[in-house]
Amino acid sequence: MNDNWKKKFSTAACKTRPSPVRELLKVIKQPGMISFAGGMPAPEVFPIEQFAEGAEKLVSDGATMLQYGTTEGYDPLRNFLNQWTAPRLGRELSLDEILITTGSQQVLDLFAWVMIDPGDVVIVEDPSYMAALTTFYNHGAQFASVPVDGEGMDVSKLPALIESLLKEGKKPKFIYTIVNFQNPAGSTMTLERRRELAEIADRYDLAIFEDDPYGYVRFDGEHLPSIFSFDKAGNTVYAGSFSKILSPGVRLGWVSGSKSIIRQMAIFKQSTDLCSSSISQVLTYEYCRKGYLDAHLPNIIKNYRMKRDAMEESFRKHLAPQGITWVKPEGGFFYWLNTGGIDSDELARKALEKKVAILPGASFCLNPEAGIHAARVNYTYSQPDVIEEGVTRLAQAIQEMKLAAR
Amino acid sequence: MNDNWKKKFSTAACKTRPSPVRELLKVIKQPGMISFAGGMPAPEVFPIEQFAEGAEKLVSDGATMLQYGTTEGYDPLRNFLNQWTAPRLGRELSLDEILITTGSQQVLDLFAWVMIDPGDVVIVEDPSYMAALTTFYNHGAQFASVPVDGEGMDVSKLPALIESLLKEGKKPKFIYTIVNFQNPAGSTMTLERRRELAEIADRYDLAIFEDDPYGYVRFDGEHLPSIFSFDKAGNTVYAGSFSKILSPGVRLGWVSGSKSIIRQMAIFKQSTDLCSSSISQVLTYEYCRKGYLDAHLPNIIKNYRMKRDAMEESFRKHLAPQGITWVKPEGGFFYWLNTGGIDSDELARKALEKKVAILPGASFCLNPEAGIHAARVNYTYSQPDVIEEGVTRLAQAIQEMKLAAR
Repeated sequence: MNDNWKKKFSTAACKTRPSPVRELLKVIKQPGMISFAGGMPAPEVFPIEQFAEGAEKLVSDGATMLQYGTTEGYDPLRNFLNQWTAPRLGRELSLDEILITTGSQQVLDLFAWVMIDPGDVVIVEDPSYMAALTTFYNHGAQFASVPVDGEGMDVSKLPALIESLLKEGKKPKFIYTIVNFQNPAGSTMTLERRRELAEIADRYDLAIFEDDPYGYVRFDGEHLPSIFSFDKAGNTVYAGSFSKILSPGVRLGWVSGSKSIIRQMAIFKQSTDLCSSSISQVLTYEYCRKGYLDAHLPNIIKNYRMKRDAMEESFRKHLAPQGITWVKPEGGFFYWLNTGGIDSDELARKALEKKVAILPGASFCLNPEAGIHAARVNYTYSQPDVIEEGVTRLAQAIQEMKLAAR
Repeated sequence: MNDNWKKKFSTAACKTRPSPVRELLKVIKQPGMISFAGGMPAPEVFPIEQFAEGAEKLVSDGATMLQYGTTEGYDPLRNFLNQWTAPRLGRELSLDEILITTGSQQVLDLFAWVMIDPGDVVIVEDPSYMAALTTFYNHGAQFASVPVDGEGMDVSKLPALIESLLKEGKKPKFIYTIVNFQNPAGSTMTLERRRELAEIADRYDLAIFEDDPYGYVRFDGEHLPSIFSFDKAGNTVYAGSFSKILSPGVRLGWVSGSKSIIRQMAIFKQSTDLCSSSISQVLTYEYCRKGYLDAHLPNIIKNYRMKRDAMEESFRKHLAPQGITWVKPEGGFFYWLNTGGIDSDELARKALEKKVAILPGASFCLNPEAGIHAARVNYTYSQPDVIEEGVTRLAQAIQEMKLAAR
């Protein structure tokens, strides 16, 4: 086997790390394994029949679906999304204010291309979505962070952070936030904080990247207006995804924002993948056009609410007595456990021996001290009885660690 | 309209340029426009019915197609490609030597992530595929170039070029070549040059990026072995694409190579788009599995050969008398015209007034002197009578330019 390659690798290649989630996808295929590790939708809520209806288009509109599309995306789908997101974004956007992407993961990469020079400071939540951190890091970003609590990013800490960065001559480029049912923390930014964040960004002339893959999967309470809708200066981009409300397999996301930032992201999309799959876009548009997106969303929400409730009950029964704490998420895919004195890396290893996979906090946290006492647990993928069994195993792992530590 | 954005852009964003092809896609939709500008397959050779057969999988295998896939790609499709490309690559590769990508455009981006540090020298053919140049440029590459003639890259010039770079302390990272029916030059690298290139790369310990999107679309003569098949040291990656042999709308390509480079490209794919569309991958695999890929390829070749012949005839009739010269391509999508004394930028503008779109050479050429007297002309997308009409208009444009210059 040749290994001339490694000595030729770029600095970025030598520094980057594989995603622990993507790597775990291989492990969790083992028989008997219970996975709380990924962020996968439940297959039973895929609207298979309704989505497959669009397949007639493969014949009647085959010449479009099999051909290159424009980089900006399939116009009918862009128009649909502009209408569909209008209540959340505060107004209906025009065609040149939206770009269709290959999953919302690509939005992170394209935005980083447009915004980040090596050494630039990006303000992120701590903890945050690890594949966003990795993408920004690959582009050479340095991180400054603001803690997340039960009410989302603690924006009261922002002005002092920004001032201190400015004093060092390091003007931050943008603030990255997952506003609803944050990954991994599970919490949602309050209305007051959203307003405040938009105001702070405006005051300091900072861009905001509002990432909202989970926002439409709300179990309790009312939808809150987006930061985008408060931002009259147009400094915010809003990223959405079909992965959690329809299917990750379509690999489609989108980004909404001012014409100039959307245009520049499209230019980088030309050189990264030219355009997103026309087949996926037409099939997805057909599904949306018929009203299925809105009609099916309650089924998804109902399924995940039921599983969230099952996990809440199992946690109360098995983990609360062990001193583990958490904030109950109002939507989305994840619980974020505070493991107290328990080392979460060790817990994850121990749990894997018992055939239950969780993600230790370290990969999500800029502050390693915080990560070592936290873990992300997914509830959308497993059935309630499996959730109960998995949480039981997790509790056993904790108990054994405590006994061993005595 | 907010334009706070532009002052926040990265250096890469300020320096990059939009693709003239992608931009022209908008212009050429005008009624009456004849487009020789893009590189689009002809819709009439899309195997619509056969491809649509796979749609039954949307129901029977919906849970797989709508779910996330692994970053490396759908295993059955990877296995199929490893078998299918074995004659060309000289051996059947294993699963960890192939990565499925979102079009072969993504291979360029992922390879650049792994290999290029800002300032690194990459050796390319002059002229070359403009979106490859843009991708490498976005990643900070500097270019050294070797001219392409009727027999492909003039590899005899390589050793002196490499030696002079080494003397400057600039060891090149890799050599980028489009071996078959080069885009834009149309020529194919001879067997002798392929062997020599592999030998030179081995001698100087350089990687080779062998890009082969057109290789299976050969009208005349015999297929030649890939450089990959000569490279016993494993320093070559081979990139393939479904865009020209099935459909660009599936947005699928692949890259074959040593385990360590494939693995590292997969890690960057995790942070750029996680995985390629599962829907596209399963539909494409279904098509391939049934033998349709091989069965349909002769139809594509026949259609494009007929159009190449039509263009050859029109060129002889209308352009040869004007002093325009060219090399007849044995396959692929393009003619590369030598416009002699005619400025190709001006010719392209003049032609557009007459509603025929061609691409002036400048965007493909590192040497601007060469580009100004060359133009790329596509023959796959238009019917023979349209080709004749388009070439007639082109000849008129040339004639008018000559008259005006007197």
